[in-house]
Amino acid sequence: MAGIEAMKVGVIGLGSMGLGIACSLAGAGLVTKGYDINPEAVRKLSQAGGLPADSAADAAHEVDALVVVVVNAAQTEATLFGEAGVASLLKPGAVILSCATMSPHNAKQLARSAEALGLLYLDAPISGGAAKAAQGQLTVMASGAPAAFARAQPVLDAMAATVHRLGDEPGLGASYKMINQLLAGVHIAAACEAMTFAARLGLDLPTLYKVITGSAGNSWMFENRGPHILDGDYAPRSAVDIFTKDLGIVSDMGRQEKFPLQLSTSALQMFIATAAAGMGRDDDASVARMLAGLTGVTLPGSTNKD
Amino acid sequence: MAGIEAMKVGVIGLGSMGLGIACSLAGAGLVTKGYDINPEAVRKLSQAGGLPADSAADAAHEVDALVVVVVNAAQTEATLFGEAGVASLLKPGAVILSCATMSPHNAKQLARSAEALGLLYLDAPISGGAAKAAQGQLTVMASGAPAAFARAQPVLDAMAATVHRLGDEPGLGASYKMINQLLAGVHIAAACEAMTFAARLGLDLPTLYKVITGSAGNSWMFENRGPHILDGDYAPRSAVDIFTKDLGIVSDMGRQEKFPLQLSTSALQMFIATAAAGMGRDDDASVARMLAGLTGVTLPGSTNKD
Repeated sequence: MAGIEAMKVGVIGLGSMGLGIACSLAGAGLVTKGYDINPEAVRKLSQAGGLPADSAADAAHEVDALVVVVVNAAQTEATLFGEAGVASLLKPGAVILSCATMSPHNAKQLARSAEALGLLYLDAPISGGAAKAAQGQLTVMASGAPAAFARAQPVLDAMAATVHRLGDEPGLGASYKMINQLLAGVHIAAACEAMTFAARLGLDLPTLYKVITGSAGNSWMFENRGPHILDGDYAPRSAVDIFTKDLGIVSDMGRQEKFPLQLSTSALQMFIATAAAGMGRDDDASVARMLAGLTGVTLPGSTNKD
Repeated sequence: MAGIEAMKVGVIGLGSMGLGIACSLAGAGLVTKGYDINPEAVRKLSQAGGLPADSAADAAHEVDALVVVVVNAAQTEATLFGEAGVASLLKPGAVILSCATMSPHNAKQLARSAEALGLLYLDAPISGGAAKAAQGQLTVMASGAPAAFARAQPVLDAMAATVHRLGDEPGLGASYKMINQLLAGVHIAAACEAMTFAARLGLDLPTLYKVITGSAGNSWMFENRGPHILDGDYAPRSAVDIFTKDLGIVSDMGRQEKFPLQLSTSALQMFIATAAAGMGRDDDASVARMLAGLTGVTLPGSTNKD
């Protein structure tokens, strides 16, 4: 690194996405400190060449960039600007990359708080799943000031295959992400409605999967979640509670904008019913199990929880 | 054709799908007679090497196979078994290929009527659109007796790239097709809800299209219908009324089976609202225009009909 100091980055939140991001940053040669309340996640990062932090403050201390990969807007707010908030510990002019899925309204508020402290802020929700996070191949739906993009560039290069640059205003990244979540949530619920109804009609589900994935009824989610139903495997790749949260945000946005969202709010109710039946932490394809339980349909390999 | 007489096939219904099928059959060397109430369609077939029929009876007279490509079950029933029904004019042991999208219940009834006349019956709904019909590259979701498949083989070979053989019972083809329509209808309505809501949020729609088609929110329908909205082009490739019909059948099936279909019946209501606003014969992406009209959103190139 003759003369050029490597960029120092902190990562707060080492869940399936955050850990993958932190390992990708370390692998790309950035000095990467990571923190999570789960010490096992911190240990995994240090095995992958990252530096273990023993607190959020430790991870944020004097970094050039801080990646926040927690669950939602409230956790992001608490992490950065709460009682033990770490935003004030960053280097002056450092950039915050905020990756949690949240409403555009919350993204704008967080950006204002960051700017008030002289920090740059990138509204940077992510997509692609844990495997792509580990490979540094995520998709980022990013918006923010040109200076924020410039400062974040080495971090974006290390964590993402595709960076959609969606404008100068924080909140735009969040908006595009929420439209993606609207569609993804409806498509999961539709796949579950279709598969369970097909089972009721006596159709062969593996044949149905083959027919639909080659037809106009296909979706990314049908193709991806269908095998969970065919295998009766509801171990959480992405949990029901993620979509009760994300479609909940979509529903709130619709009310704020006075815009009727008939399909996405119907899908939300199906995720809520699934969580209510005790499957909130199971894979989101569990919406099919909820419908099967309601209607007495038997799905492959599953013993209905109710 | 030294010694082997070419198969004689009739096609009744020369709309965008039926004409393509009839031309494909003629192109494959089958003796193909076609009839439609629209003489222009009959003329097009004869220009493509088919034989013009001046009535449904003429098209069905002494054929080995009759392909019925009309709008729905009621038209199929009237064509075959109504007052001027042509089923009795076919060669003994001939096969009927019934291509209209209909409920499994109707498909079974038609099959029974055909069998009572000593005819074979293939429940053979199609998918793929007008362009693939013209190329003989359709997908057929077929069920029926092995003898019906055997007799229909040269016709299937000429009209389809993929024949899903879904079982020996008429009605199975219809069931798989209806599940495809359930998903397709929900996905069109979801694409329209997402695009119009995104416009309300001030997002750039061509950018949104690029982001979503590369993300987990994508569907075959979002990818296919999205450009109609981006171009403000609602000339009917497939009309709103097709989905008020098909999701109507899905809704009826759900009630018969006592199976709740929250999403598909919500989507049905959106298509009905669009038809009610005067756009029943326009492209099914007009659901976006219905939502735009309701909410005061301006979509590309469109002047809202209301």
